[in-house]
Amino acid sequence: MEKKTVAVVGATGLAGQQFIAALEEHPWFQMTALVSSKRSAGKKYGDAVKQANGSVGWWAGEFPSDKTQQMVVQLSDDFDPESVDIVFTATEIAPSPDQQARGETKQSLTQAIESRFATARPTISTTSAFRYEDDVPIIIPGVNSNHAPLLKKQADRGWKGFVMPIPNCTTTGLAVSLKPIYDKFGIDMVLMTSMQAMSGAGRTGGVLGLDILDNVIPFIAGEEEKVQKETQKILGDYADGAITPADLKISCTCTRVNVQDGHTEAVFVSTKDRCTVDAVKEAMREIGRELTGLPSAPGEMIVIREDPFRPQPKIDRNAHDGMATVVGRVREDTALPNGIKYVLVSHNTKMGAAKGAVLVAEQLVQEGLI
Amino acid sequence: MEKKTVAVVGATGLAGQQFIAALEEHPWFQMTALVSSKRSAGKKYGDAVKQANGSVGWWAGEFPSDKTQQMVVQLSDDFDPESVDIVFTATEIAPSPDQQARGETKQSLTQAIESRFATARPTISTTSAFRYEDDVPIIIPGVNSNHAPLLKKQADRGWKGFVMPIPNCTTTGLAVSLKPIYDKFGIDMVLMTSMQAMSGAGRTGGVLGLDILDNVIPFIAGEEEKVQKETQKILGDYADGAITPADLKISCTCTRVNVQDGHTEAVFVSTKDRCTVDAVKEAMREIGRELTGLPSAPGEMIVIREDPFRPQPKIDRNAHDGMATVVGRVREDTALPNGIKYVLVSHNTKMGAAKGAVLVAEQLVQEGLI
Amino acid sequence: MEKKTVAVVGATGLAGQQFIAALEEHPWFQMTALVSSKRSAGKKYGDAVKQANGSVGWWAGEFPSDKTQQMVVQLSDDFDPESVDIVFTATEIAPSPDQQARGETKQSLTQAIESRFATARPTISTTSAFRYEDDVPIIIPGVNSNHAPLLKKQADRGWKGFVMPIPNCTTTGLAVSLKPIYDKFGIDMVLMTSMQAMSGAGRTGGVLGLDILDNVIPFIAGEEEKVQKETQKILGDYADGAITPADLKISCTCTRVNVQDGHTEAVFVSTKDRCTVDAVKEAMREIGRELTGLPSAPGEMIVIREDPFRPQPKIDRNAHDGMATVVGRVREDTALPNGIKYVLVSHNTKMGAAKGAVLVAEQLVQEGLI
Amino acid sequence: MEKKTVAVVGATGLAGQQFIAALEEHPWFQMTALVSSKRSAGKKYGDAVKQANGSVGWWAGEFPSDKTQQMVVQLSDDFDPESVDIVFTATEIAPSPDQQARGETKQSLTQAIESRFATARPTISTTSAFRYEDDVPIIIPGVNSNHAPLLKKQADRGWKGFVMPIPNCTTTGLAVSLKPIYDKFGIDMVLMTSMQAMSGAGRTGGVLGLDILDNVIPFIAGEEEKVQKETQKILGDYADGAITPADLKISCTCTRVNVQDGHTEAVFVSTKDRCTVDAVKEAMREIGRELTGLPSAPGEMIVIREDPFRPQPKIDRNAHDGMATVVGRVREDTALPNGIKYVLVSHNTKMGAAKGAVLVAEQLVQEGLI
Repeated sequence: MEKKTVAVVGATGLAGQQFIAALEEHPWFQMTALVSSKRSAGKKYGDAVKQANGSVGWWAGEFPSDKTQQMVVQLSDDFDPESVDIVFTATEIAPSPDQQARGETKQSLTQAIESRFATARPTISTTSAFRYEDDVPIIIPGVNSNHAPLLKKQADRGWKGFVMPIPNCTTTGLAVSLKPIYDKFGIDMVLMTSMQAMSGAGRTGGVLGLDILDNVIPFIAGEEEKVQKETQKILGDYADGAITPADLKISCTCTRVNVQDGHTEAVFVSTKDRCTVDAVKEAMREIGRELTGLPSAPGEMIVIREDPFRPQPKIDRNAHDGMATVVGRVREDTALPNGIKYVLVSHNTKMGAAKGAVLVAEQLVQEGLI
Repeated sequence: MEKKTVAVVGATGLAGQQFIAALEEHPWFQMTALVSSKRSAGKKYGDAVKQANGSVGWWAGEFPSDKTQQMVVQLSDDFDPESVDIVFTATEIAPSPDQQARGETKQSLTQAIESRFATARPTISTTSAFRYEDDVPIIIPGVNSNHAPLLKKQADRGWKGFVMPIPNCTTTGLAVSLKPIYDKFGIDMVLMTSMQAMSGAGRTGGVLGLDILDNVIPFIAGEEEKVQKETQKILGDYADGAITPADLKISCTCTRVNVQDGHTEAVFVSTKDRCTVDAVKEAMREIGRELTGLPSAPGEMIVIREDPFRPQPKIDRNAHDGMATVVGRVREDTALPNGIKYVLVSHNTKMGAAKGAVLVAEQLVQEGLI
Repeated sequence: MEKKTVAVVGATGLAGQQFIAALEEHPWFQMTALVSSKRSAGKKYGDAVKQANGSVGWWAGEFPSDKTQQMVVQLSDDFDPESVDIVFTATEIAPSPDQQARGETKQSLTQAIESRFATARPTISTTSAFRYEDDVPIIIPGVNSNHAPLLKKQADRGWKGFVMPIPNCTTTGLAVSLKPIYDKFGIDMVLMTSMQAMSGAGRTGGVLGLDILDNVIPFIAGEEEKVQKETQKILGDYADGAITPADLKISCTCTRVNVQDGHTEAVFVSTKDRCTVDAVKEAMREIGRELTGLPSAPGEMIVIREDPFRPQPKIDRNAHDGMATVVGRVREDTALPNGIKYVLVSHNTKMGAAKGAVLVAEQLVQEGLI
Repeated sequence: MEKKTVAVVGATGLAGQQFIAALEEHPWFQMTALVSSKRSAGKKYGDAVKQANGSVGWWAGEFPSDKTQQMVVQLSDDFDPESVDIVFTATEIAPSPDQQARGETKQSLTQAIESRFATARPTISTTSAFRYEDDVPIIIPGVNSNHAPLLKKQADRGWKGFVMPIPNCTTTGLAVSLKPIYDKFGIDMVLMTSMQAMSGAGRTGGVLGLDILDNVIPFIAGEEEKVQKETQKILGDYADGAITPADLKISCTCTRVNVQDGHTEAVFVSTKDRCTVDAVKEAMREIGRELTGLPSAPGEMIVIREDPFRPQPKIDRNAHDGMATVVGRVREDTALPNGIKYVLVSHNTKMGAAKGAVLVAEQLVQEGLI
């Protein structure tokens, strides 16, 4: 198979770098365009990540290959999406004061740029700009791949391509872990408290060391609403060109803790049918078997730990290269009807971001949608 | 009023030191006995906290006064509880291999020593040894002071004194914050996830830096059961010489985070009667008004924060010298019937330990029970 | 004595807040003007520190008094320095792209604003803008108060007031600890490695949690040069209206560690005359005795610890409310001629910043220079 | 070549686990004996690392292979060193109170057990027990391999094998980085301040999270003396069956910081001959070229970083799988005669411990000494 050519938009940012790390040496995809804002455009990528203070701004593990370093970064406005087969985008655009005055928002500007790509090509995005539109699925391979046909409906927008957003990084592990329970026992209610890693906040406007040292920050703006809404959509039914959100009640409290990578979530679930701890674990172990053959798919989608002190973000976030959801402490809940509770760790910048987006692209290719 | 004389048992340990910090310059109490194990007995207190490696093992803020430093530490076996008016004890006794072979447990050994004190004198304990006995209340001043008369029932054990244990440090903030809701609206169900500080684990067997850096540890042995049981008992009804535990369902997940002091708890509550966010806040603000006049009582028992990023353990743990429970993010729950959710911070080594125990003693004195 | 009126310029920033904390309830000084940039001007101070995301941006301990909260923040351009007796300024002004194009630098812009204040009034600054000018002393009370007459020379600039900058926060503890050695034994050479706290980097452009967790950052731009140059100037001789820098060789490596407040420095000194560990400690204990009577002066300028595990920033930074330099591990050096080595901790945002600047002002008042 | 059989003594401890990680799939060596104390002996290794509280006590990355898990741990007293070709030992034996009373020390007991192994077989040790004996070299491959013949002198002790200790983990990076400077320019004096990782303190008696959070601990008992003495020995001359320590003055201050792995060291060097920054870097790049062919040798022994913010322990400790010393900020010193200063990061539990010991064994095999 000839490799498909791909662009990474927002290539110098934290998420863009993670795309590059996930795409270097990818067996199916080949980066042929790196796209960024004015500050970096025209520079070789290896120079573009050098910062004004002389430091190298690379935060995604192994430094890129020589070949990638030599690629010249394109200006976003000049980038022609038709020049590639797939666009991966990690760019949110904050409005300038002038734009704000004209009523533009981060969402409207990000939608505008993603639309421009989608007009021409399949566009996989880590942003939330299109997540809540009716003709846009939020796909996690192994969880709701059956929502993929909805992408075709975006042709009604006059697009040759489509926008396919991945979920918020906090939603991912939750939805993955709920899916087998939902399918087997039904779910009435979910209560979740997250202890989220700092990398989830990115670098621009990221959490200061001063603020997080010896601390927990009990609020992440907008996060709880996203997780609640996205989980219902992901677990929803697809039929007749529309997704009906899952009929489950869900409530979250999202906090930030002093952890580099890996979101930890304490989950309480009330199922519709009676379930047992063993049956839940068994169902969890079964999920994602169909992903065989996708290069970025984890060997196991959910890893179950029996050690009561696990999962821990430091030790478990890298299970299956950060693509598995690690679940532990599965036990009966002492309050909820048909209650089950557990703790999960999910790598927010791997499965929860760029590499998760690459996995979606792989699946869409496999299914012939790309 | 002449000061009452008090002993601190376990005086060199972390909790014992916090007792000393809480009792130095206390207007009602005067330390006349510091009691410890063989390693320290016979030494002046100032020398007893010097460690084998040359460092000074003092972890409770300001170093003790000269007067306290000069006090000679008594051996626990030699200590006569009748020599003081009140015994404060922070000592848990781990069984030696021999004792283990004879069936002794930490609980049985700790009960034995606390019994010896209680035979003679009111004994306020931070341990769990007696917490779940029928004739033993777990009192938090301002929450369930009305349970105090149960202490008299311990006379049936042939004791002249009594044992009065304070709750687990994770229970304290939870019970304080639930009390006004329970009284005003009734509570059907509570789900709580804690993010607990390291000082809660003490120093012996404390959490290693290696284990907690860049990490969350999702399990604390025995903690969840304690919190669940104690909360029901504290919120229970006292009548006819017995406590009937509150009829509320409760489920916890207790985790450890990289924080020095101050337990953070994300709480989801389903009330019996409908309630509003404002009504909950108002009820919370009212609690504890009757504590006026107790030297260790906080100015406000619950402090409500409106800043959505609060409470944070680093910033809020010391509110009212660590004696207040700081509550924030009070909002409607999106899943539970009549749901309310919030986040609290409670200082685990102040209100949740020694200084909380001193506050109980103050109240018992005020009520004439000591 | 009537209180002198003072302005705090840069009042909403981290350093400005620390000024406010140091000046609330000051017995000699009364804040009558809070000055800031366009974003805050015209608002009440209590509102000005509220941030766009709803959080309260206050990072200097106890929240300001009601009176301070009610003060209306003045725009820097509108502020008349003649309206107060003393100006405290903590503002560095970064050039806009336009200004940069015109050749303006942070230093030139900061000098411009400080000049405007100094034209009218004594101006105590925490910035480096004027530190290296010939007619500007860098005074640490108790160390080089004798440099103060140099301030009069600034009258040659046509100023009615003067600019008095305090040193870089990393210089302060070093200079304080070297002074008694320098006076008694002479110093040939100093080698210092710092482990600096995050608060030294401020909040704008502060260290990200992502970068400092589980890490040491071995470089702080410009810091080593500042420390080297300032130490020589502070220990220098003042005569005939000029400071001759101390003739000592000095070399630093400045690093950032995961600590909130308190710079730790490992110092190696080669003295001119032979010295002993005991003689060095004795000299250190003597320093600063003359500061009696200044409200912000520490009880001891240098505190010596004999515990080999001290000083530690977490435990020692608040000695004498952060105004003392805490020294430990004083021992013979095994390499340098007449070598002595030790470790010090100095609070970078108290003695090393705003409160240190207030102490200087107190001394200048006492000496009649203000 | 048939694989040599090796034993790991102290197999369940932190250092022992790192040996196992370094030896799994080793091309030359095959683990045939895992040796431990009474607590673990007789158990399968996979069970032996399970802890009393139900957690899995494995801290060395990837969990051991099934084959290793199935190996039955031997009791140290029963282990016959003749049953293997090489003994790797990581065990220090603390004296019991009885043994202490008889005058035994950790060193004497550790020497006793290492002697028993060495009587029969080459014994590579991470302990300090024999490091300072006259007939014992402390070899770092690529630095002082020429000291290896001294091992033969241990035959005078009546041993068929020998004891070959690796240096203290803080010495390793320092000696590696000094060697090229020493050889090319001569060294008069070295001053070093370390910022050491927590894993260097191990788990038993390891640093508590409570103590290191938001802190620097400025003392590590015995460390400075070890580093000073070992560096002189490693850089010394070997001739006529004896090592003459290098004639260089050296002084260290060793501190602990809140870092998992990777010691950071700020080094100031005064060379005998004049040198330049470029010449020092060039010499550093040349070192270790002769290690080609050893399976555990790094691709480069010293990696030079030009980014002024490097090396950082979090980012650089794993260079060449933790076997390289990463050096940055090489610059002229502003105080010392012929002064050079730089910062290094060295992985204390890889090159500085077990994997470094495996590298030594590889070299001794290559040279025919094993």
